[in-house]
Amino acid sequence: MFIREEWYIAAWGDEVQGEKPLARRICGEPVVLFRDATGRVGALTDRCAHRGAPLQLGCVTERGLQCGYHGLVFDRSGTCVRIPGQERIPSRASVHSYPAVEKDGFVWIWIGDAARADASRIVDFPYHNDGERWPHKHTMYPIQANYMLMVDNLMDLTHLGYVHTSTIGGNPNTHVEAEMRTEPRPNGLYFLRWMRNSMPPPTYVKATGFAGRIDRWQEFEYIAPGSVLQWTAAVDAGGGDAAYADGVPEGGLTFRLFHGLTPETETSCHYFWSAANGYRQHDPQATEQLFSEIAGAFLEDKRVVEAQQARLTETGEAGLIDIVTDKARLHMRRVVERRLAEQAQRSAAE
Amino acid sequence: MFIREEWYIAAWGDEVQGEKPLARRICGEPVVLFRDATGRVGALTDRCAHRGAPLQLGCVTERGLQCGYHGLVFDRSGTCVRIPGQERIPSRASVHSYPAVEKDGFVWIWIGDAARADASRIVDFPYHNDGERWPHKHTMYPIQANYMLMVDNLMDLTHLGYVHTSTIGGNPNTHVEAEMRTEPRPNGLYFLRWMRNSMPPPTYVKATGFAGRIDRWQEFEYIAPGSVLQWTAAVDAGGGDAAYADGVPEGGLTFRLFHGLTPETETSCHYFWSAANGYRQHDPQATEQLFSEIAGAFLEDKRVVEAQQARLTETGEAGLIDIVTDKARLHMRRVVERRLAEQAQRSAAE
Amino acid sequence: MFIREEWYIAAWGDEVQGEKPLARRICGEPVVLFRDATGRVGALTDRCAHRGAPLQLGCVTERGLQCGYHGLVFDRSGTCVRIPGQERIPSRASVHSYPAVEKDGFVWIWIGDAARADASRIVDFPYHNDGERWPHKHTMYPIQANYMLMVDNLMDLTHLGYVHTSTIGGNPNTHVEAEMRTEPRPNGLYFLRWMRNSMPPPTYVKATGFAGRIDRWQEFEYIAPGSVLQWTAAVDAGGGDAAYADGVPEGGLTFRLFHGLTPETETSCHYFWSAANGYRQHDPQATEQLFSEIAGAFLEDKRVVEAQQARLTETGEAGLIDIVTDKARLHMRRVVERRLAEQAQRSAAE
Repeated sequence: MFIREEWYIAAWGDEVQGEKPLARRICGEPVVLFRDATGRVGALTDRCAHRGAPLQLGCVTERGLQCGYHGLVFDRSGTCVRIPGQERIPSRASVHSYPAVEKDGFVWIWIGDAARADASRIVDFPYHNDGERWPHKHTMYPIQANYMLMVDNLMDLTHLGYVHTSTIGGNPNTHVEAEMRTEPRPNGLYFLRWMRNSMPPPTYVKATGFAGRIDRWQEFEYIAPGSVLQWTAAVDAGGGDAAYADGVPEGGLTFRLFHGLTPETETSCHYFWSAANGYRQHDPQATEQLFSEIAGAFLEDKRVVEAQQARLTETGEAGLIDIVTDKARLHMRRVVERRLAEQAQRSAAE
Repeated sequence: MFIREEWYIAAWGDEVQGEKPLARRICGEPVVLFRDATGRVGALTDRCAHRGAPLQLGCVTERGLQCGYHGLVFDRSGTCVRIPGQERIPSRASVHSYPAVEKDGFVWIWIGDAARADASRIVDFPYHNDGERWPHKHTMYPIQANYMLMVDNLMDLTHLGYVHTSTIGGNPNTHVEAEMRTEPRPNGLYFLRWMRNSMPPPTYVKATGFAGRIDRWQEFEYIAPGSVLQWTAAVDAGGGDAAYADGVPEGGLTFRLFHGLTPETETSCHYFWSAANGYRQHDPQATEQLFSEIAGAFLEDKRVVEAQQARLTETGEAGLIDIVTDKARLHMRRVVERRLAEQAQRSAAE
Repeated sequence: MFIREEWYIAAWGDEVQGEKPLARRICGEPVVLFRDATGRVGALTDRCAHRGAPLQLGCVTERGLQCGYHGLVFDRSGTCVRIPGQERIPSRASVHSYPAVEKDGFVWIWIGDAARADASRIVDFPYHNDGERWPHKHTMYPIQANYMLMVDNLMDLTHLGYVHTSTIGGNPNTHVEAEMRTEPRPNGLYFLRWMRNSMPPPTYVKATGFAGRIDRWQEFEYIAPGSVLQWTAAVDAGGGDAAYADGVPEGGLTFRLFHGLTPETETSCHYFWSAANGYRQHDPQATEQLFSEIAGAFLEDKRVVEAQQARLTETGEAGLIDIVTDKARLHMRRVVERRLAEQAQRSAAE
């Protein structure tokens, strides 16, 4: 079950361009995305109104997206604007269109009643627009697991010591003993983790050449249903509090990650993520290296979470236990369950 | 649901030869084909009467098809003629056999009550036997779509301009504006399409070197459930009517295609097709080139139709609309629906 | 349906070693095997008690098997001995453990009520421990068929002449005419097959250089549910009875095979098998060659039996007939059916 009446990331903006449309399943629905002649993105049901052929096989023309089978053309609103061989276009010859908004590098689409689509509710992440201070690189990983399992993954960071020992994690005890402050938010939660006077993990050493112990922190904000905004930094041990308050000095490390989890089906999701370099902004090599280290780490997550999904698909969750480090994860789950319960109530009332 | 009490193409005759039998699923049923010592083709259920092993793993022996597991032998009628280790052969030790007829290069098998199998009803296509006037080349494409979607494809040729722009199609408008004459037939339909004074598509230019505009026509005959006989020709613009009446002159182009669609399952079929060169019969290169151009075009159809099947499997046909160019397609569908309705009535009466 | 309250081979002992555990599905259940710091093998349900991640992704540590996701550790009994980040370990934080016994090269696990696990019931095959007289080589083949179909295969050896003509089989008639003596056993059956004065099959000629006819015998013992112990020998024609009584002389051929069939799912199994060379024990080349010939033959079985499974999955066994050479096979099937009937009665009584 998916949260409806909600914006979801459907694509990176730069994935939607040129003559070929982009097909992607969102919350179980087949969607086709294209950029029309005005430069705006359309999101339609990926099924021609004539014979059901997927519109993804078609191409973008002056008037809209043309079906690759018999040439019907649909504009951004899903209205059919051309049927080869006939003048009259019946009003039924249309396809469903999704409200679509391009913002901060993403294409967001609205799953739910279009009348309720309010673009002001879309998550802000202005760093994607600030190539001077936060040069970034981004991609999308297809994950064969429910998107909640990936959000779970981000809410319990003790996994860093086990899944990512040799990359962004490092010593497991560092993570288990991290000082953790969690705050509820109206549609999610916030937490801050401090690992003071700890050994830097391999990725950090590669990035900045830390020679000794460090003060390291991670700030996470979860916004339902699938956005996780991360700010991470590390400086030489002892300098943590000052750096947190005043900014990370030369020689320190700081980066921002955006994790966008969009359901594809009940057992798969799209993982849109970016890594923004905030420590050596004028060194494209540094941005590239940061991205590439994190890319490797996220493949480690993918492997574990997909195996977890396969097992849970078989056995369900019966008998599983919650542990102390699940605190933020459980809060996140309650937010989502509340949304789903409200949705069920609304359905019942309608 | 498949039309029963009907002949279906199970194989090209030259696919059934030598020691190894040929396995093929027809209308959902596992069939094994072999050519026995007398040279005649047998078609049996592909399941040994002993332990259910597929007979396709066996080999053809003097007395019939020998199971590759424990050596039982079955003749063309499905009768077991040998059980290693015992003299007495119980009458239950037999497998179902299908009436099979070899004609015009095809092996046709009868799906239904054997007592009603009437070989005189089998479609004629004598051109396959006339290597002098119609040298041809043939193959079979496996298609992951219901056979009806492939027949649909052949009944609405406006797709040529969108799916086959760069091969046999050419300019979309030429097809949309084609003059079309449709005639019902007892078990199908006939149509003739004229595209006068039109630009030749790329394949035609390659074949004959047309320098300017052409008169082009296509004659199609659909015979239920799955045969489509095509005769295509083109001559320099202005010469169309004379060529249609008297034969295509030197420098013109003419070829015949046979499209045989046989259901494999509800969502897959076998596409048996041939291309016969009627314009440069003594040039094997021309036959080869014609085949190879069409082979490429049919892979374009395969791609679209398989994607269409996947979408329809998910969503069904709800909400789809018919358009003007669907006329022949809709007639074809009514023929098939009538056959299925008659079949349902017969079943109910029995 | 599987026979419960029974030992099954889960692995070769040498498959379970080092830091990485071994995952294997047994009788439909996901099992993870590991060798703990004391050298003993543990067999646990392959699902962490915390978030359900498969333990197969973890690694073996001093205190037990550590989950690769958040670091929980489980000992051989399935008890959780560590939860990172908390002192108290709730008793519910455990996973199911299977009684496991290592014997004669195999790891056997008990499927059923642990209180009834009686290691004295495990099949004996001491030859695996006697590298002087019976040097052997072993492996496991994954088979996409119910384990019963593989036992069937071993109970009707007339298949050797059809499936293995060019390897261990040879002339089909030799097998069909074999003299066969079958004896019931409490939990299985025994049979002895004599093929006197017969031509040696290709594998035998390769192994020993037989120049003329041979006396050849095979002794089989089936022990439910999935063990088949085989002793095979051949000597020059005329010498069979003496060799059977007194031992195989120089120049003769003798080997032992163990066939261990363990259900993975209803339509797949693990085929653990070994080949022990009893004729040229000090020639590792001979052991290797014997193994390699048999390995090829068993792939021939795999191909036939997997195709048989696919067909039976589709059609069931309706209409199949038993033949004379099915005698031992039918006895074996009755043993298994009796066990399953007893099991159903026990369930009903509980």
